[in-house]
Amino acid sequence: MKIEKICILGAGTLGSRVALQSALSGYQVSVYDIHHKALESSKKVMQGIVKQLIGNGSLSQEKANEAMHRLTFTTDPSHAVADADLINESVTEEVNVKEKVWKQFGQLAPSKTIFTTNTSFLLPSMFADISGRPEKFCALHFHDVFYSKVVDIMPHPGTDPNLISLLEVFGKTLRQVPVIVKKENHGYIFNSMLMAFIGAAGKLLTKEVASIEDIDKSWMVNFHMPMGPFGILDSIGLDTAWHVTHKMPDAASQAFAGLLKKYIDAGKLGQKTGEGFYTYPEPAYQKNNFHE
Amino acid sequence: MKIEKICILGAGTLGSRVALQSALSGYQVSVYDIHHKALESSKKVMQGIVKQLIGNGSLSQEKANEAMHRLTFTTDPSHAVADADLINESVTEEVNVKEKVWKQFGQLAPSKTIFTTNTSFLLPSMFADISGRPEKFCALHFHDVFYSKVVDIMPHPGTDPNLISLLEVFGKTLRQVPVIVKKENHGYIFNSMLMAFIGAAGKLLTKEVASIEDIDKSWMVNFHMPMGPFGILDSIGLDTAWHVTHKMPDAASQAFAGLLKKYIDAGKLGQKTGEGFYTYPEPAYQKNNFHE
Repeated sequence: MKIEKICILGAGTLGSRVALQSALSGYQVSVYDIHHKALESSKKVMQGIVKQLIGNGSLSQEKANEAMHRLTFTTDPSHAVADADLINESVTEEVNVKEKVWKQFGQLAPSKTIFTTNTSFLLPSMFADISGRPEKFCALHFHDVFYSKVVDIMPHPGTDPNLISLLEVFGKTLRQVPVIVKKENHGYIFNSMLMAFIGAAGKLLTKEVASIEDIDKSWMVNFHMPMGPFGILDSIGLDTAWHVTHKMPDAASQAFAGLLKKYIDAGKLGQKTGEGFYTYPEPAYQKNNFHE
Repeated sequence: MKIEKICILGAGTLGSRVALQSALSGYQVSVYDIHHKALESSKKVMQGIVKQLIGNGSLSQEKANEAMHRLTFTTDPSHAVADADLINESVTEEVNVKEKVWKQFGQLAPSKTIFTTNTSFLLPSMFADISGRPEKFCALHFHDVFYSKVVDIMPHPGTDPNLISLLEVFGKTLRQVPVIVKKENHGYIFNSMLMAFIGAAGKLLTKEVASIEDIDKSWMVNFHMPMGPFGILDSIGLDTAWHVTHKMPDAASQAFAGLLKKYIDAGKLGQKTGEGFYTYPEPAYQKNNFHE
């Protein structure tokens, strides 16, 4: 089958980015959200990215205009999914919300529509049956689309195996690097490794082995990277990290979740609130003298 | 006190690098090894690095010559340590070897000499007493000196606190970024995080969640890095990774240690044997089509 029309469910940060990249890659895209306001901010997010891409020379104004014409925004579910070849769902990371959405769109979508979820830490098997078409259901998980260009393809045991290669091709048309998660795994591939390394950093901090700055320096200088684990946590959001960490039963994760909670309760969620482990917009780790 | 003369114990890869950087930074350096042959290959290692540094424009031939004149190589322990202000020990990573060396040099060294160990995973408290001067004993752990310019300063509970700031200044004179490990910790800061992330990668592989290549791609593309965990393992050496992993009691580490052992038994230790998870000198992850 040929994929031509994409329906994006949920106009948050990730949904907006997938929608924009799909439109830039030549697909017709409808963006659905229950909130009109979310659609308005989605447009602004896209305009911001387009401006950046034009600014750094990787996109022309003409191509940007063409892409924007391929996008529609709607709060009408039937309109959103009409004639869609593929749904990519990025609604709130809560089981009951995703269940509700998949039940609804399972009934509304044309029979040809492929169902994909962009969930971060949940599993496709949790929603495959309720969608009414488990064989057409698969996780298709993007990272940030424009900087980290990986897309995870993670089937559940009931996914039609042919769907995997189709999604692989689709991922490449969006200029992403597709990776196959052969078995369902919370956090796919990258997030599993990321959380392990961040957990180790958290343990070094809560056990008072080293300071935030020295832990970050160790990572940054050894790997020539622009951020260490606590800088990365600030960019992920401490609330997001806490959601994953506080569910882990081991003592080290619990201690780190406790520390994250203190920051969260003080309103320090990271970059988005202007403060987390560092203060923004000019965090210490971006300053020239950080390594001195 | 003023540090002028450095004594390097053990002329292996790391010892040679620390010795060379010390000489390049203006220190008088004696390099000691029990094997004459090790001293000869140490000279070759240094000449190779000097050639690279001159080649990439970060060192002049004149400065290189000056540095080489500050280096002496000897199999005579008394000669090596005569008038040394600081010892940095990089002998074989075995407790009884290090104990023997520290007992010997504890007796031979002038009373002014500061004792530092470059151990990777052992702790300074294991050798502080046998050296006869626990208050002057501290871990001073380099990474690869020329690319990863971090130096860990890790005291044991009996280390004189004044020694820490002295070593911090010393580390900076070697153009390294000093980080303080406030409490003894196997693997300092970076290696703790590295092994956690590599352990997570190993778990993804042994549980057959994803392929070696897809795991590496996920890391490389997300973080814009030249290697993923299995490429890094090939550069560390699978035998070195096995030494750490097989001692960890959890099932995931044991499974991964088992997998590493199979590679090791087949002579696949990584880059140094021409094959590990990838084949060298042109591993798949360095090829242009790796992400396709």
